[in-house]
Amino acid sequence: MGGSWAPDVSPTSDFSLENLPFGIVTTPDDTSLHAAVAIGSSILDLKVLAAHPGTGLASLFPSLAGHEDVFAQPTLNAFAQLGRAVHREVRSGLRDLLAADTSRPEVLRDSPELREKAILSQRSVRMHLPMAIGDYTDFYAGYHHAFAVGTMFRGAQNALQPSYTHLPVGYHGRASSIVVSGTPIRRPNGQILLDPTAEPKQPITGPSRKLDFELELGCFIARPNKAGEAVGVDEADDQIFGYVLLNDWSARDIQAWEYVPLGPFNSKNFGTTISPWVVLADALEPFRTKPIENLAELQGYLREAKHASVFDIRLEVDLTTPEGDTTTIARTSAKNLLWSFPQMIAHHTLGGCPLRTGDLLGSGTISGPGGLSECGSLLEMTQNGKKEVLLYGMDARTFLKDGDAITLRGVCGEDGARVGFGDCGGRVFSASTTKR
Amino acid sequence: MGGSWAPDVSPTSDFSLENLPFGIVTTPDDTSLHAAVAIGSSILDLKVLAAHPGTGLASLFPSLAGHEDVFAQPTLNAFAQLGRAVHREVRSGLRDLLAADTSRPEVLRDSPELREKAILSQRSVRMHLPMAIGDYTDFYAGYHHAFAVGTMFRGAQNALQPSYTHLPVGYHGRASSIVVSGTPIRRPNGQILLDPTAEPKQPITGPSRKLDFELELGCFIARPNKAGEAVGVDEADDQIFGYVLLNDWSARDIQAWEYVPLGPFNSKNFGTTISPWVVLADALEPFRTKPIENLAELQGYLREAKHASVFDIRLEVDLTTPEGDTTTIARTSAKNLLWSFPQMIAHHTLGGCPLRTGDLLGSGTISGPGGLSECGSLLEMTQNGKKEVLLYGMDARTFLKDGDAITLRGVCGEDGARVGFGDCGGRVFSASTTKR
Ligand SMILES: [Ca+2]
Ligand SMILES: [Ca+2]
Ligand SMILES: [Mg+2]
Ligand SMILES: [Mg+2]
Ligand code: NI
Repeated sequence: MGGSWAPDVSPTSDFSLENLPFGIVTTPDDTSLHAAVAIGSSILDLKVLAAHPGTGLASLFPSLAGHEDVFAQPTLNAFAQLGRAVHREVRSGLRDLLAADTSRPEVLRDSPELREKAILSQRSVRMHLPMAIGDYTDFYAGYHHAFAVGTMFRGAQNALQPSYTHLPVGYHGRASSIVVSGTPIRRPNGQILLDPTAEPKQPITGPSRKLDFELELGCFIARPNKAGEAVGVDEADDQIFGYVLLNDWSARDIQAWEYVPLGPFNSKNFGTTISPWVVLADALEPFRTKPIENLAELQGYLREAKHASVFDIRLEVDLTTPEGDTTTIARTSAKNLLWSFPQMIAHHTLGGCPLRTGDLLGSGTISGPGGLSECGSLLEMTQNGKKEVLLYGMDARTFLKDGDAITLRGVCGEDGARVGFGDCGGRVFSASTTKR
Repeated sequence: MGGSWAPDVSPTSDFSLENLPFGIVTTPDDTSLHAAVAIGSSILDLKVLAAHPGTGLASLFPSLAGHEDVFAQPTLNAFAQLGRAVHREVRSGLRDLLAADTSRPEVLRDSPELREKAILSQRSVRMHLPMAIGDYTDFYAGYHHAFAVGTMFRGAQNALQPSYTHLPVGYHGRASSIVVSGTPIRRPNGQILLDPTAEPKQPITGPSRKLDFELELGCFIARPNKAGEAVGVDEADDQIFGYVLLNDWSARDIQAWEYVPLGPFNSKNFGTTISPWVVLADALEPFRTKPIENLAELQGYLREAKHASVFDIRLEVDLTTPEGDTTTIARTSAKNLLWSFPQMIAHHTLGGCPLRTGDLLGSGTISGPGGLSECGSLLEMTQNGKKEVLLYGMDARTFLKDGDAITLRGVCGEDGARVGFGDCGGRVFSASTTKR
């Protein structure tokens, strides 16, 4: 298929015509939050498109009849809730409008007036959280990460709990501190046990000395399930709106002291960064592949008819020092999961827990099988601070310093038809000095 | 001080003139959610009061000027966000309006027309969730419960982690499954390891056989804190809107198999019941007392100037069988906490986690020091199913049966001036039979 008539769609852009991810923007002409799609280095402002006299959203996208204000909302929740069949129709209609050989050139391609208002440079717009997130759940499906970290903390014998291969382990995260890419992240203060071997155990309170990132894939829920009603694993794909990259910032010293027996709390709840563009579930369909093989005898509710249940997304992590030197410290693939998102959804709802439109699921940290260059966290990469990661600029890290920025990237497909996420980045700044 | 002119304010009512808790109702004349206060066996409909020609909300409560629609909202969040000084003024103004010797008899007491519309029997209204709950955090501050359960699962030596006396342990709960008193609770299906000693460990999937309740006090946040900024322990009381009773329904068999290392998940996220009336923070002030003594050397951010930092609320748990026999199976006091809510808030925000208006904090299960009749869960009361609790009607329980109802009650103060919560109840019904 051909390319787009939109300006500056580089062959290496994450946002080819095959992608068309949705986001929430403010623009120089409209400072109220509203929806857009990304195309190359531009956006198509969907609120402007919908409001244009003579366009008629429902004539372009019949399934949006009665929902003409859906792109003027401050979040994508109303659109997400319409379900995958609607997302598919709208995305394919937008692909036609933006294609060089569009079947409706008069709507946008050959309408200079609308083009000037609706096609804006990404540099000129500001991105916001794409969804109102009611609940956020973080899973632990990255097998290589879970095994490496478990070994570090509990020894290879007890690295993984017996339940790990039987159910997708997850915990409830903090929705209020999820921020969009670009938001600065303050180093947390917390209780830390400096010497775990000393008795009696007396913690101190201060800035985390082991601030880390976690490379994850995030998944947004489209359709809610009713309280008390489980979602079948083979129906769960229909509940999914789309995907983002997710950095689950983690303070390892705070985590070590607090996490037994009820799980991570302040070590995680100070901030979670997501990429701003939601890559729709349909855009990732061509990149399905098999997950890590699970040798356990699975419970019926977790057995999938589809074998290619995860996505081969090329993932990278960049660390940029305060001096501005950038090093790619990790490369792996999003296929390195023991559990698929449909399995996570089936498990999450097994007991009747209601998922709502806009709820966010994290995959858990994704690391590859190939050693230190494939680690999705510094904890693994530095063996909990024992080894340094070497950086450009004659620098090195065990954990993150103030002024460091972490940027996650993820992309599928060939040049000219890439489906990528754009940057998921955040820079760390110094802890507060309030009374401790 | 004297009583209220409102009808049927029994001396044993939870809702004396000294209480005036806020809730969200629908009424025979108005099926849109809106605010009310409870007085005796009646409610005062605040939306009707505000809309009455000639009343003028801001003339009654000057601090509500510019917020005249605050009681027509579907939740109490907008009111909560106005802060404790406003809650205090409004509550004291309402107390005057409802007092037998009101200083403004013409407004309500002597206005038969408005009284008829605004004073309604509680039996005629329906109660709803009082707040939009962004995030829900459950703490574990009930020392006697934590010690007893820890002993059961990990032995007396390891009953409490070394961190337990240094920080208020908590974990993020599930906001989407919080329901108001009276909502039926479906027994969850889940993965269960029937024989934990057998190797290899192979779970089954089915309805929980160890369904339990947890007696807790819940606390709603009034004012948000900014991301990155901690709330000082002595300022934290000003962040609190009010309190409810909370039943953290728990499936002990699901919990045992899933909770290591990331904490409880499906064992808790199928439902949490709260009482419908929010008892404002000011209404509980007269009932302050000291918490359980903590012998650890506390970190500075947890040291409170106020010593009487918890509330002496008399708590009771009723179990009603499907046959309709009711037994009070536990009695204790809400003072049995090692940590106060201000300490929980100071800890929760230490790393900068933003609490938002409407966020809910649970105390953790509250048990007394006096043995089995003071237990806030069946887990403790039956020693994890080893002993039966005897019930009226020649019945007995280890864990909950389908058709059982649990009702929590809590009250402070003397007859004629009681400050209570009303019922926090829910009845269990059978698990779904979807494919497992
Ligand atoms: Ca994580
Ligand atoms: Ca609890
Ligand atoms: Mg996080
Ligand atoms: Mg619960
Ligand atoms: Ni939430």
